[in-house]
Amino acid sequence: MNRVAIRAAIHVAAVFAIYLSAAMLIPAAVDLYYGNKDWRVFAFSALFMGGLAMAVALATHGNAPPVTSRFGFLLVNLLWLTMALAGAVPFLASSLDMSITDAVFESVSGITTTGSTVINGLDHAPPGLLMWRSLLSFMGGLGVIALGLFLLPFLNIGGISYFKIESSDIEDRPFERFQTFTLSLIGIYTALVIACAISYAAAGMDGFHAVNHAMSTVATGGFSTHDTSFLRYADNPAILWTGTIFMFIGGLPFSIMILFAIRGRFEALRDPQIRVYAGYCVVFAVAVAIYLRVTTGESFFQALTQSTFNFMSLITTAGFASQDYTLWGPFAVTCVFVATFLGGCSGSTTGGIKAYRFLILFELMANGLRRLIYPNTVIPVRYGDRSVPDDMQRAVVLFISSFLVLWAITTVLLGATGLDFITALTGSLTSLTNVGPGLGPIIGPVGNFSSLPDAAKWICSAAMLLGRLEILAVLVIFTPTFWGR
Amino acid sequence: MNRVAIRAAIHVAAVFAIYLSAAMLIPAAVDLYYGNKDWRVFAFSALFMGGLAMAVALATHGNAPPVTSRFGFLLVNLLWLTMALAGAVPFLASSLDMSITDAVFESVSGITTTGSTVINGLDHAPPGLLMWRSLLSFMGGLGVIALGLFLLPFLNIGGISYFKIESSDIEDRPFERFQTFTLSLIGIYTALVIACAISYAAAGMDGFHAVNHAMSTVATGGFSTHDTSFLRYADNPAILWTGTIFMFIGGLPFSIMILFAIRGRFEALRDPQIRVYAGYCVVFAVAVAIYLRVTTGESFFQALTQSTFNFMSLITTAGFASQDYTLWGPFAVTCVFVATFLGGCSGSTTGGIKAYRFLILFELMANGLRRLIYPNTVIPVRYGDRSVPDDMQRAVVLFISSFLVLWAITTVLLGATGLDFITALTGSLTSLTNVGPGLGPIIGPVGNFSSLPDAAKWICSAAMLLGRLEILAVLVIFTPTFWGR
Repeated sequence: MNRVAIRAAIHVAAVFAIYLSAAMLIPAAVDLYYGNKDWRVFAFSALFMGGLAMAVALATHGNAPPVTSRFGFLLVNLLWLTMALAGAVPFLASSLDMSITDAVFESVSGITTTGSTVINGLDHAPPGLLMWRSLLSFMGGLGVIALGLFLLPFLNIGGISYFKIESSDIEDRPFERFQTFTLSLIGIYTALVIACAISYAAAGMDGFHAVNHAMSTVATGGFSTHDTSFLRYADNPAILWTGTIFMFIGGLPFSIMILFAIRGRFEALRDPQIRVYAGYCVVFAVAVAIYLRVTTGESFFQALTQSTFNFMSLITTAGFASQDYTLWGPFAVTCVFVATFLGGCSGSTTGGIKAYRFLILFELMANGLRRLIYPNTVIPVRYGDRSVPDDMQRAVVLFISSFLVLWAITTVLLGATGLDFITALTGSLTSLTNVGPGLGPIIGPVGNFSSLPDAAKWICSAAMLLGRLEILAVLVIFTPTFWGR
Repeated sequence: MNRVAIRAAIHVAAVFAIYLSAAMLIPAAVDLYYGNKDWRVFAFSALFMGGLAMAVALATHGNAPPVTSRFGFLLVNLLWLTMALAGAVPFLASSLDMSITDAVFESVSGITTTGSTVINGLDHAPPGLLMWRSLLSFMGGLGVIALGLFLLPFLNIGGISYFKIESSDIEDRPFERFQTFTLSLIGIYTALVIACAISYAAAGMDGFHAVNHAMSTVATGGFSTHDTSFLRYADNPAILWTGTIFMFIGGLPFSIMILFAIRGRFEALRDPQIRVYAGYCVVFAVAVAIYLRVTTGESFFQALTQSTFNFMSLITTAGFASQDYTLWGPFAVTCVFVATFLGGCSGSTTGGIKAYRFLILFELMANGLRRLIYPNTVIPVRYGDRSVPDDMQRAVVLFISSFLVLWAITTVLLGATGLDFITALTGSLTSLTNVGPGLGPIIGPVGNFSSLPDAAKWICSAAMLLGRLEILAVLVIFTPTFWGR
């Protein structure tokens, strides 16, 4: 790592922060429109952040950055740290009187699309602030898709990207096509949010809440404008199914939609991770719906509506809740726990372990068992009709091992801050997978993270960032090799 | 798989069952000595089992078995199933009036050296029956050492065996040396049990209890002759440290002791898994001792005695308890949870993931992170001063993945039987790792498994057997490849 690279990375992050400051004018406009004097908070934050970012950008202006994987890793970490800190400024300055810990936690939870909150009284919070939370989710979701589609596969850790595996276009002329891809992505993503907002409103949700929920639905973020998330919409199946459908879309690889927009082809639908993802969504939703039908006696449609909304929310790592599903009985609770690990596809807004990793892991397992009997046969590990290269196999194993080790460490650390076992175990898990709610009386689907000790909030914030950057992109920064030579 | 192999495997298992029947005469003698009329239970069981086994052995007598890995896998499964079922006969026939479910659970818990119990009122149970439980642990411990040292490494799943890696003796003349090794192993193992019993007695434990506890200490089994395990010895540091030391020895690779007995060499002590194992024992014991010292105000020696005994018991997968450590506070409880995964060395009596797998996994992780930065460098994965062959790397990843998948499945299944989340989560974990106690109000260190529904007991029994046979040796039986061609 040399100074030129560090300087160049800081420059890019500073330029990015200028855009982020401009985004703060949106909640300022919202507060102005609703006549809330907190518009000044955002105007001030935009000026402060914008000025600071501009100064840093000018000071670090220089040569073009070296295109190496080390520069890529450094940049990714810097961009997300910048978002986290810049995003916290309006919370700090707001009328809610939040501590630095709380402001950073809320910001990190937004940009990582986790959706855990430390704010009590969301229903009476200034509209601009609610909009800022939703915008953080929106930008975080967009950022992570871009990361998953364009950057991580080239750093060998994002796994499957159809742009890497399939498209000869981008391999031949990567930078020429980059702008087209980015613009399509932003267009599609925004169109989905608008479609979702209209559907929510048509189903009976108030306009402001519909827009906010739409942003954090497509981003599979989980921030709600209500303290009780979707509990107030529990009796409105149209709203719940709208949420279910758009969360499912948020869990799909956005490469499908981009390829369709650019070339009119849907061939990426053959991507086998989609079958795995859809498969486990259906299995959990139906199994728990049957269980609810049997244990509660409500109609199968009612049971299926609740089960599908809440399990789609867990599997796509959104983290909304339409009921306190921890009261659904032991079988449902163990399913909730397992669903917290899953995640959607690569190149989506979801966190967690993700479908393609499970697919490759199961292929590795089946392969390994076969080779116990015939040790000398070489059978390629397959992903659909392709064989999985060694570096991708290694990356999957590396990700899952790192995930588990970090889960164990954060659980023990949260325990050391005094949290009970269930809260420590599921708080660390739900932060690492960017889901949001955990289990137990404190951080369950109807609770929040506000009463946690400060140390626990910082640990969870770190875990959310680690999870969002697919763990390895952060860990690599802490190796001696990264800083060597 | 052909009929000759199946027939040969059944023959070996039947011959083994004859020895097992003979072992039942020991508890018969104990009951006779103590004047308990339950001696007839064991005499009857021995006759019944012995006759049945002899008939099967005669009926399946035939050609020598084919020496293939498939035969090895089949035999291992059959031997442990035979032990499980034969071991259950005296429980069924005993005056305790146990159901088939309970009898099989108790037997499986014994031979897998798990130590979970479904018997209430151990303190007033017939002495022969207590002795039979201890004998099951004793035999199970001996069996698993033999498995780990002699068989699994050659089936490519037991991981590191110094006999495979180091000794040219056994590779040149495997069967010639086999008898020497087996006799040394039995001699050393028995000597350790005798030394442990004498130490317990010298420290103040009643003779009968000392012998029983010694058997399940060296086997890291966890069966106690008291309902409250070691709680009645909580104020006797000499007894607790005796237990700690002999459990630690039970977690070492027995190859060290065999090589010393045969050749007078201690070189296997350089085995790096021993440093990892000793390392995490010390870290957990000291960290929790400091925590106890600070939170309870007892002396550091007292805190260290309790912490070391209970964490050694968890790490070596014995499962004794000298206090209800679930009341030690959240940090200690999260440590208990993490310690339940660990295990000792390969070729020991312990279960769990085991030190050498952690070592190889961490090497894989460090290696993988380095290769994210320099994708084209090939760096061998090292184990001490050797490089780890590909098949062993694959086996470690395969084991850990299978372990986690099975843990998730058994948790959901236990949840479906109606167990609360904590009991389901830790009941499946503690069964798979052969530790014994879980967390929560039912199966915690001062509870037992007696109140679980029958379905849950069968699920735990299956998990204990899977864990004991290093999972893969069982899973392989369920692949189409195993039965094909």
